[in-house]
Amino acid sequence: MPIWRPWKGDDRQPGRKPDGGSLLAAKPGFGPTGLLKQEIVETLEQIESFVHKVHSGEIHPPHAPKFTDILSIGIGGSALGPQFVAQALAPIDPPLAIHFIDNTDPAGIDDILIELEHRLNTTLVLVISKSGGTPDTRNGMIELQKAYESQQIPHSSHFVAITGHDSKLEKLAKSEGWVATFPMHDWVGGRTSEMSAVGLLPAALQGIDIQQMLAGAKEMDSATRIQQLKNNPAALLALSWYFAGNGKGEKDMVVLPYKDSLLLFSRYLQQLVMESLGKEKDLDGNIVHQGIAVYGNKGSTDQHAFVQQLREGVPNFFITFIEVLEDRKGTSPEVEAGVTAGDYLSGFLQGTRKALYENQRDSIAVTIPEVNPRTVGALIALYDRAVGLYGFLVNINAYHQPGVEAGKKAAAAILDLQRRVMQALQEPKQSMSLVELADAAGASEEIESIYKIVRHLAANHRGVVLEGNLAQPGSLRVSAN
Amino acid sequence: MPIWRPWKGDDRQPGRKPDGGSLLAAKPGFGPTGLLKQEIVETLEQIESFVHKVHSGEIHPPHAPKFTDILSIGIGGSALGPQFVAQALAPIDPPLAIHFIDNTDPAGIDDILIELEHRLNTTLVLVISKSGGTPDTRNGMIELQKAYESQQIPHSSHFVAITGHDSKLEKLAKSEGWVATFPMHDWVGGRTSEMSAVGLLPAALQGIDIQQMLAGAKEMDSATRIQQLKNNPAALLALSWYFAGNGKGEKDMVVLPYKDSLLLFSRYLQQLVMESLGKEKDLDGNIVHQGIAVYGNKGSTDQHAFVQQLREGVPNFFITFIEVLEDRKGTSPEVEAGVTAGDYLSGFLQGTRKALYENQRDSIAVTIPEVNPRTVGALIALYDRAVGLYGFLVNINAYHQPGVEAGKKAAAAILDLQRRVMQALQEPKQSMSLVELADAAGASEEIESIYKIVRHLAANHRGVVLEGNLAQPGSLRVSAN
Repeated sequence: MPIWRPWKGDDRQPGRKPDGGSLLAAKPGFGPTGLLKQEIVETLEQIESFVHKVHSGEIHPPHAPKFTDILSIGIGGSALGPQFVAQALAPIDPPLAIHFIDNTDPAGIDDILIELEHRLNTTLVLVISKSGGTPDTRNGMIELQKAYESQQIPHSSHFVAITGHDSKLEKLAKSEGWVATFPMHDWVGGRTSEMSAVGLLPAALQGIDIQQMLAGAKEMDSATRIQQLKNNPAALLALSWYFAGNGKGEKDMVVLPYKDSLLLFSRYLQQLVMESLGKEKDLDGNIVHQGIAVYGNKGSTDQHAFVQQLREGVPNFFITFIEVLEDRKGTSPEVEAGVTAGDYLSGFLQGTRKALYENQRDSIAVTIPEVNPRTVGALIALYDRAVGLYGFLVNINAYHQPGVEAGKKAAAAILDLQRRVMQALQEPKQSMSLVELADAAGASEEIESIYKIVRHLAANHRGVVLEGNLAQPGSLRVSAN
Repeated sequence: MPIWRPWKGDDRQPGRKPDGGSLLAAKPGFGPTGLLKQEIVETLEQIESFVHKVHSGEIHPPHAPKFTDILSIGIGGSALGPQFVAQALAPIDPPLAIHFIDNTDPAGIDDILIELEHRLNTTLVLVISKSGGTPDTRNGMIELQKAYESQQIPHSSHFVAITGHDSKLEKLAKSEGWVATFPMHDWVGGRTSEMSAVGLLPAALQGIDIQQMLAGAKEMDSATRIQQLKNNPAALLALSWYFAGNGKGEKDMVVLPYKDSLLLFSRYLQQLVMESLGKEKDLDGNIVHQGIAVYGNKGSTDQHAFVQQLREGVPNFFITFIEVLEDRKGTSPEVEAGVTAGDYLSGFLQGTRKALYENQRDSIAVTIPEVNPRTVGALIALYDRAVGLYGFLVNINAYHQPGVEAGKKAAAAILDLQRRVMQALQEPKQSMSLVELADAAGASEEIESIYKIVRHLAANHRGVVLEGNLAQPGSLRVSAN
């Protein structure tokens, strides 16, 4: 059985950047003495003081007694944790209701703008980006600035930044005099930032007890430092993953919480697990193509969707059942003699587990007594640690993401090509074929990309006209209008 | 290259039940003459007439001029299509706002009940179950009946059934005098029911143009009957799946629509694809364990979540990009010179596609001009047909779900065991160990299940008390209180 040295908070130093430090906020006592501990404690104090002032109205928008809504602009690690926690834990009638812009989709932004149109003047906008340079987040921020401008409201009285020290975003926030700025420490990775200001600030604003979240994470942190494998829940999880997927990710991880409020847990885990473990090379530089694919929504709903394949089809997965013992607050009516809706939910979980077991499909069951800030904090810490341990088992760096850059660079190249295409179309010319346009833009190899670019520009009335049959690129004539 | 005989609507007869007939509603002209065609046309007329009366207030709740909300109670195929379509197409300010109970989770039901507490008297409740015997749906229905009772509102003035002819649910609705009953025809399968009353009634109530949805499906139906493979989009999709996964589902299908409103498309496809294709046996009875796993949320958001693994990690997937040419209604502000948020979205799609291609990861791109009822209808029809064709390619029955029963039976056995456990605890006895309780319940082999049952009962104050350490089942003493 593999042996490892449990991860030590003490190894981390500012500037060393192994990331994955979300647990640190839960246990400054475990952190290194000095600077880091002080940063953690100060950030927590800053969050609690700020939230208290927002709730009491001491901090309020220029022309209203209180803020009513939060609009969180962030993507990836700056959105998935806050979304999961909001759905799992926000009270029905929160002090501030949260909304998310987690994409650079103009129609999606419009939906939010229409929803908040009459409440922009009481909305607190959180702009969340570690580097401050994430384009999706920057785009959402600019669109919101313009929305505030169009209502003659100074956006700076509504905007809050959560960002890295000295980032572009921090500088902007300070120069414009935003409501507040919260730190995203260098040693906290995006996908493990739920227990930092990224997750704790929106949670606290919604009235979620963040001290309980931290207490749950702290308990789990202690439990997952135990050296005896069979008493260490994170070690058991990591070893189960290793066993199920042969240490090579041969099986997908299907995550099924049997509880509506945990619906977004699998989406949260998709990033945590796939971005951490999906690596081309191991620590010795060997090509290994590691990773574990994660998907799932919730039980018993998913039973009606895809248990057919899980039981009978391609055996390329293992399941994690998340069981919640408490059905609801208060008592349940009977749906038949002696049986409640919750008994059915529980019965479906046990029944599905058995039915899959009979067909040699592996499963893991994680049981929590109820969904509350403490258990959610513990779940987050459990998987955070399990991912680190699995990374250790398969000898990869779970704390970087070298493959993400390639997509960003390729996207930037497309935008650059778009600029050249639009410039080429400005020349006083007749309409051009795609081939001619590609030549004129100095990109004769990029005809397919140019086809896609001009099609998108034409569809959005961006000064490009297409004649011919869209389904036959060879027939197209492109011109500026 | 494989040759097949395109599926013929004419093959279908009431009672034959090959299912998958969602396209029929779009094209009664293609359906068999006589009974089926008449059923389709009549159902459509019934939907449109009913919706018109609800919108105008001619059909209204006993003590209010109009219905304001829809509560849809259904699971699996009775929920995924309506949820996808509501998110994709419902107007911002719909004539009736839709809510869903798609699970037998008591806490999830409570969330809906609290949200609708003051509007139950203007809520139209759709109970959707083909057999009328789906326990999850039945449980939700009973909980809602009790909620109406507690407000002294007669539920029958609010309930509508969508169900099979002569089902339990139809009989109940008729005997109680519900507002209306709509048919779910025997030849329509749950996962392909979006174009039947299951999908069309809630869509029309929300103000979505269902004639346009049907028109889009009809166009796609014609396009996917073309015999030349390269001109048949469904054939191209099915062949791409076959190519990517070696005809054995060796690769997962990652579905990434680059548009927020299409977020639920992958969840819809999870059921359609996995329940249709995930089969143990082929049509000749050979054990084949077929299927294709489906997951994904939306781009570019998912790039920030798991493109790291897709580009560098375990190469066990292919991607389907869903591209939408129109960014938004109206013009976009620039986020930098000459560039909009939508250009970024488009650039991320092209860039990610390229970055994955460079690393030998396969992808498919499906492009639609905009998200509207016609294109959504076409997408639904496209995948419906593609799944049928792929089933044909790999020689399986795409229209049954034999594996679903096993989980249901196992769940029923758990509930039966729960009854026996509770009965055994009623005997006038001291507390029992789990072993003693298992013997008393006549289930000495079922100690693990009984442990889980009593733990769930105790957590919900159901007359069961546990003493000892929950983490050490051997130490537990169980008694009734």
